[in-house]
Order: sequence, then C-alpha cells, then structure tokens
Amino acid sequence: MPGRELDPQERLDWLRLARTETIGPVSFYALLRRFGSAQAALEALPRLARRGDDAQPVAPAPRQEAERELAAVDRLGGQLLCRGEPIYPETLAAIEDAPPVLSVIGDPALLARPIVAVVGARNASANGRRLARDLAAGLGEAGIVVASGMARGIDAAAHAGALAAGSVAVVAGGIDIVYPEENRGLYNALTEQGAVVAEMPLGTEPQARHFPRRNRIISGIALGVVVVEAAAKSGSLITARYALEQGHEVFAVPGSPLDPRCRGANDLLRNGATLTETADDVVNQLGPLLQGQPPPRPAASHLKRSPRMPLERAAPVAAAPAPVGEDGALALVLEKLSPTPVAVDELVRQCQLSASAVATLLLELELAGRVERHPGNLVSLR
Amino acid sequence: MPGRELDPQERLDWLRLARTETIGPVSFYALLRRFGSAQAALEALPRLARRGDDAQPVAPAPRQEAERELAAVDRLGGQLLCRGEPIYPETLAAIEDAPPVLSVIGDPALLARPIVAVVGARNASANGRRLARDLAAGLGEAGIVVASGMARGIDAAAHAGALAAGSVAVVAGGIDIVYPEENRGLYNALTEQGAVVAEMPLGTEPQARHFPRRNRIISGIALGVVVVEAAAKSGSLITARYALEQGHEVFAVPGSPLDPRCRGANDLLRNGATLTETADDVVNQLGPLLQGQPPPRPAASHLKRSPRMPLERAAPVAAAPAPVGEDGALALVLEKLSPTPVAVDELVRQCQLSASAVATLLLELELAGRVERHPGNLVSLR
Repeated sequence: MPGRELDPQERLDWLRLARTETIGPVSFYALLRRFGSAQAALEALPRLARRGDDAQPVAPAPRQEAERELAAVDRLGGQLLCRGEPIYPETLAAIEDAPPVLSVIGDPALLARPIVAVVGARNASANGRRLARDLAAGLGEAGIVVASGMARGIDAAAHAGALAAGSVAVVAGGIDIVYPEENRGLYNALTEQGAVVAEMPLGTEPQARHFPRRNRIISGIALGVVVVEAAAKSGSLITARYALEQGHEVFAVPGSPLDPRCRGANDLLRNGATLTETADDVVNQLGPLLQGQPPPRPAASHLKRSPRMPLERAAPVAAAPAPVGEDGALALVLEKLSPTPVAVDELVRQCQLSASAVATLLLELELAGRVERHPGNLVSLR
Repeated sequence: MPGRELDPQERLDWLRLARTETIGPVSFYALLRRFGSAQAALEALPRLARRGDDAQPVAPAPRQEAERELAAVDRLGGQLLCRGEPIYPETLAAIEDAPPVLSVIGDPALLARPIVAVVGARNASANGRRLARDLAAGLGEAGIVVASGMARGIDAAAHAGALAAGSVAVVAGGIDIVYPEENRGLYNALTEQGAVVAEMPLGTEPQARHFPRRNRIISGIALGVVVVEAAAKSGSLITARYALEQGHEVFAVPGSPLDPRCRGANDLLRNGATLTETADDVVNQLGPLLQGQPPPRPAASHLKRSPRMPLERAAPVAAAPAPVGEDGALALVLEKLSPTPVAVDELVRQCQLSASAVATLLLELELAGRVERHPGNLVSLR
C-alpha cells in the first residue's frame, strides 16, 4: 500500500492491473505483494496462469484503455483514488477486499471525514423517508458525512437530508451512469455538493451482481450502517452484514411488527444492532470513533450472536508471499472447489496446506479464470 | 410462610393482620417472623409501637370485619389466597413485598400456570391493540396464561386475545369493583372464563396510589412482562421496572420513532429488553422457565445497564428476628429518614447498625404510623 499519492505512471499501472479481467481486489493485492509493484505484476502476468488445464495467458488491460479512462474521468472533473493514498477512505482501506481503485466525482475531501451510511428499502413508507431524511440531517449537524446508495426510497431521502452537510453516493455502475433515472436531479446535486463514488469503470451500466459488491463499499467507508425500513431479505441487510464482517457498527430503526418493511431492521435489533431513533443514538454509540480515534478492528461484536443470524467474521487471507505450490497441491485445491462458494479458511483446513500456499494457488486459478472470488473471503469454481 | 393450605382460623388471622392499618407486606412478614404466627402478632400489636413520640397503640383490624370480608368474597364465588399456600402464584410469593392475602374471583387454578403479562398504553393505536390481541392469543396457544391490568387499550386487547386460553386481570381496587366502567363486559367474561385478582379489600375504589402497587403484582405473578406501546413515562414502564427488580424478564414490541406511544417500548429495547414481534419471541426467551423449572432469582440481568435506565435491584431486607434496638438507635434512624423515600440498605449503611436492628426499628416506626413503605425496599417518613 503506498501511503502516499501515487505518481501518474504508478496510478496508470494500478488502473491497468485493477481493470485486468479475472483480477479481483484480493488477487490484486496478492500480486502487488508478490511482485512488489503493479508494473512488475503487469509484466509477470503473461507468465502466470499457465497451470490451469485450459489456461490462457492473462492479458493485462491495455495501456491505451487505461489512459482513455483516466482522461475521461478527468474531463468529468473526477479523479481516481488508489487504496492507501491519503484521501482514500481509511476505514475502507482497512477491509481485505477494498477496491484497489475508486473513481470519484464531486468533493473527494468528504471521503476523509467520518462517514455513516444510511440505507434501507426502495419501497419505503412516507414515514421511513422522513426518518431517513431527519436522521441524515441530524448526522450532518453532528459533522458526519452520510453515505448511501442513491437508490429510490430511503437512500434518496438520506442523501437529500445530508446534502447540505455532506453526502456521498456509492453507485453500483460507473460514476457517469445515473441509476435510477428518476434520481438524476439528486445525482446532479451530489456531483456538485457531495460526491459520487464507484469501483466500476466509467460507462458501466449497473447489473444485479454489482450491487452486493457495491454494498461492501458503502459499509466499508462508514464507521457504521444505519438500516431504516428493510424487509426480511433485502440488500440493506447485506450491507449490515458486511459492516459486521468489517468490524463496523450496525444501527437499526425500530418499526411496527405489522409492517413487513420493518422486519429486517427489527431482526437486526433482535440480534444486537444499536436501536436508533435519532442521530444522537448514532453519535452516542460511535462516540470515541468520532474523536478521530482509529476505528476498532474486530471490535464491533457488541452484537449478541444468535442462531438466527449466523454471521461469521472472515479471517483475513494469508498475506505472505509464498512459493508456487506443487501440482499435487493444485489438484487438491481444485478437487475441493465447486461452483458453490466456500470459505478460503475451510479450503486451507480441508487441504491441509499452509494458508499462504492455498492463497498462491487460488491466485493462479483466479488468473486462469477458473476461480471466482466472493465477498467474505469465499471462492468458487467458475 | 405456610407452604400448605391455612386452616380457617389462620386465614382469618392473616386477613386481620393484613388489613390492619399501617401494616404493609414487609411489616406483615417481619411480624410473622418475629411472633411466629399471625395470631401471636395480632396479640402483640397493642404492646408494640409505643416508641414513636406521638405513638398510638396499633389496633388490629376487627375480627368481625375480617369475617364479613371472608363471607362477602365467598358470596361472590371468590376466595382468599394467602402467600405460600399451594395455589398462591409461586413467582409472586418470591418477591419481598408479595401481598400476604390476595382475593381472587374466577378460576384460581390459572394462577398456578406459567403467566406472562402484556401491558401498554390506554390510548393505544388500532395497530397496537391488534398486536396485543395477537400476542396474547399466541401466548395462549403456547399454554401461557396472560395477565394484564384491565385498563383500556392494550390491557383490554390483551385480555380479549387471551380469554379463551386463560387470562388474569390484576385490578387496583377490590375484585368487585369494575374500573373502568366501559370494561364491564370484559370483567364479566374474566370472572367467568378467567380470573380477577386484587390485593385491596372488597369494595375498594381504585385510587392513583393503588396503581403502582398493583403493577408490582402484575409483574410479580408473571415470568415476564411484554410492553406494547408505552409512552416515555407511563405506568407500563413502572411494571417493566418491577419485573426487572423482581428478576423477571422484560419484553418490548418495537415501534416507529415517529410515534410517541412507542417511545417507552423502544427505550426498553435500547436498554436490553427482548425484542418482541410475536409470541414466539417470548416463548423462545422464556424457554426453560416454561419447562417447569423454578424461576431464576436475580438472573434477569441479560439487560444491559445504561445510564439512561439506572435501575438497581434492591437487596432483600434483613430477615432474622432481632432484639428491639436502643433509643439511641431509634433516634438515629429517625434522623436519617425524610419524606423522600430512601433505600433501607442505605439507611443501614448510614446508621452503621445491623440490618436486622434497622428492620426491627422500621417495623416499630411503621406500626406507629410514622414510616411508610414503598416498593423496591424504600421507606419514608409519613
């Protein structure tokens, strides 16, 4: 991780590596550690990934394409932030699969301030919207920037309430794509007064699979996630689960058991989320974190564990560079993999290999396009 | 405590002692311990209470009056239960200031079954009433008897929902007094299908001061109290506080922060009450208690302590009989007392006397009409 601003050449290399097909964040950092720099990783790529059966050499994203993206972001008045750069959000940088490169349009300085996410149902009730708006405004008055997903309902209300004091939308597609179209006015306001952030390249139309990955960024940049009106199996609960996995706080606004839109938030409360009626509840709970103290890493477990919410915090992936495993080991790992995602930890246990050996083998398989990464340090066969 | 059914003479003596002016439950049991029986205490009363300055001998309640009450209860088809008798509710008998004598009309066998209280706002919303009714019905299906206070709103809805399976009203006045009048139909149904219970003598019109004392019985007979729609400073919260002090469970139904009627229940949740949407939430939490295990005594503190709800569990009053203290000790205790209720523990500490000495002195002062007992083992000067 740089810990400083990258020079233009490094930034370009980071972008190329990040945009290379089959290289997700976890592989990105594994390559960076193994080869020392994005440039060296790009050079090594064609030599790698020869070990999968039907392996094709991985082609790094073309330089010209990355240059075009950089120029286009620039023309929009946006910028790219690489993980570890001073303005890259610290809480996000701390998560295992933080996006190597974020594009931002609007005021990137908002990302360096304390952030709380307010998320919830798209089909929110009028009361839910009002609560979200008031909560967001209250957080703004307390000097907190509000992040959300620019969706209809709770998200839009939260952005609206926080706009004056600081609001950040994390979108599932590119920062230049307005989705849903009805939020174009909000998008324009955010690019002028707030910020819009994306992991995906410019021009990406958001697809279903982008949303959960986007949600990990919403929870990742925030000290805590407030859930307002979320049904039993909603995207907001995925965001809350990520927050828990990332060691961030989870807040929920209670609601009537008769309203199915409150089921998810009430379930979070049942499992120990902080009951939230006003911004004060959030501010009181975050207390020390707002005084500029570093965020607590695995500390968010004031949550009671319950069989109804079997959340397990993922262990960080083995980080040390390791020699490439033998073919026997590769076969062993392949044998244990299936299209159903499995925890890397579990693989390590089942294969009886070192964590670093499994990490290296998975990297090769991912580069060969045979393995897919999932949030929570899970992998599956493609 | 008898632990068996009292014979008619003992029952009459218990009733006379319980109905004697200035003798509250704590003094009742202190006298019983000191003199061995209600009869002996009644005989000793005139000799006692000579030590307060303006002391008048305490006159035991007349035998004829007690006989009249017994006969009247009998004519109503009711009966008297003395603490410790087999049918007297076990969880209630375990509290320090359990009523020595309860009158019951209806089916007293309901009191021997597992009971959960459902209480809440009189000005409840339609949704709140529906929730209370459904919850009570669900508890009934699980074999649990529902207790409440026969008030308008949540109480009435809870009784209605539980009537078929078992419902008990604990009233603030006498069991023959219908209050409020609009609940006469409910009262009639309860006396036929359920039970109505009171600490106060027949014919007592309920007064404001009776309600908090009644609330301690509602929480006392119940393994847990479910609060549905309670405003910030409502009687239901007093019932919940008693439950906590008595080591019983507290449950609360969440509601919108925009509805002031949900403020109290949400506050309880914030402080660790079990979030309750359906009867299952109650049944799951009570689990082992419903299997016929004895109620846990000081165990209910799964509740987080919070500065916003500074509930302290009262220590039990010293129980051993003790010689009457010296005059110096009496003066010391009097000096520490004021019209503001103070904890007996605190008195013991401040006076540097033994707990049993202070208990004896307080008993004398109470018999002399100079000291008043309050729930939570508090005393004040009259």
